[in-house]
Amino acid sequence: MKIGIVGGTGDIGEGMAMRLSPLFDVIVGSREADKAEATCTMGREVMKKRGEPCSLTGVTNQGAIDAADVVILAIPFKHVAGTLSSLHGFENKIVVSPVNPMEKTDHFVFVPPQEGSAALMIREMLPKEARLCSAFNTIAANKWKALDEELEYSVPVCSDDAEAKKVVMEIVNKVSHFKAFDAGPLAVSCMVESLTPLLLNIARYNKMRDVSIQFR
Amino acid sequence: MKIGIVGGTGDIGEGMAMRLSPLFDVIVGSREADKAEATCTMGREVMKKRGEPCSLTGVTNQGAIDAADVVILAIPFKHVAGTLSSLHGFENKIVVSPVNPMEKTDHFVFVPPQEGSAALMIREMLPKEARLCSAFNTIAANKWKALDEELEYSVPVCSDDAEAKKVVMEIVNKVSHFKAFDAGPLAVSCMVESLTPLLLNIARYNKMRDVSIQFR
Repeated sequence: MKIGIVGGTGDIGEGMAMRLSPLFDVIVGSREADKAEATCTMGREVMKKRGEPCSLTGVTNQGAIDAADVVILAIPFKHVAGTLSSLHGFENKIVVSPVNPMEKTDHFVFVPPQEGSAALMIREMLPKEARLCSAFNTIAANKWKALDEELEYSVPVCSDDAEAKKVVMEIVNKVSHFKAFDAGPLAVSCMVESLTPLLLNIARYNKMRDVSIQFR
Repeated sequence: MKIGIVGGTGDIGEGMAMRLSPLFDVIVGSREADKAEATCTMGREVMKKRGEPCSLTGVTNQGAIDAADVVILAIPFKHVAGTLSSLHGFENKIVVSPVNPMEKTDHFVFVPPQEGSAALMIREMLPKEARLCSAFNTIAANKWKALDEELEYSVPVCSDDAEAKKVVMEIVNKVSHFKAFDAGPLAVSCMVESLTPLLLNIARYNKMRDVSIQFR
């Protein structure tokens, strides 16, 4: 399976690409193909040193969408609208949003767009044939990058497309010790997206690092 | 310490009263004092059979507020406004809201009032001297009642009053295997209140029962 990462050279995308590269064919997208290829070269070296297999290809964001079966939007909320308006070809692709609309004042606050969540806003921006899921919302960039560390995370997945949700939950379950949970339709993705500012506040106020969430 | 439970004969209040009765002096409030006393009589019998100490007193909701140091509002969201408008004497009391504003359609949805959360709405309804915290939001009625079961729950606590928050976190940490986490000010209580509909959806869609949440 080919997984394309839009924003694959960003803070979250880079670690995500490396974690996924032994498991899937990963197409790293960036605004500039050179930058994506540089990230892939670095990634291949890291994985080679670790003695792990690795499939990484660096292209443009558009190239990553065109080549992939599943497209992950690894972009901060503030860049979602601008980035998506410059891209096309999402028809019939499974698209994954790990995006959390939040702001930091004295603490972190969930600040959803008028649609109610980042996922619902993204759904409005994509063609109706795109098969949108939200997943991976609570996993921080440095945890994606900490390849030596197994991650014990419960990962809620939302979608209105049952088959796409099943595929994404299977992807989730292959990564580290992630465990996917069906969290319902996109209509309730706000409740998943607001977990991240909650966890960031809990980390801050309880002097913890990288708080994970587990459902039992 | 005297803990008053407004709505102490309700679905959540009843189990809460029994769980707290070996640890604190629990004042069970109800609209009718007779009903509160009946709940206490039943509770005393249950705890006696279990060989556990038990301090339960049944009074009116107003009596529970008047007698208590800490008042827990164990009432469904839809009854909060009506109940609070008939009560007084919250000045200088620590008040705990476990209230979650949610609705069930095909799934559970977080439906906050215009203030942004139940806790923020309650703050507007109470005198400014009341020391409001939110806590216990994700613990279901049947878990409160399952006295044989130790509960491994992470319990986020929000408040704008640091000292009141500390007292409530200490109470939380005494109950079963609850672990209190400082989740920040009341401004972010919406992120805690939306956990309950999220967990109810996860239970439903993954065929689980009484999903708990743990922060690690």
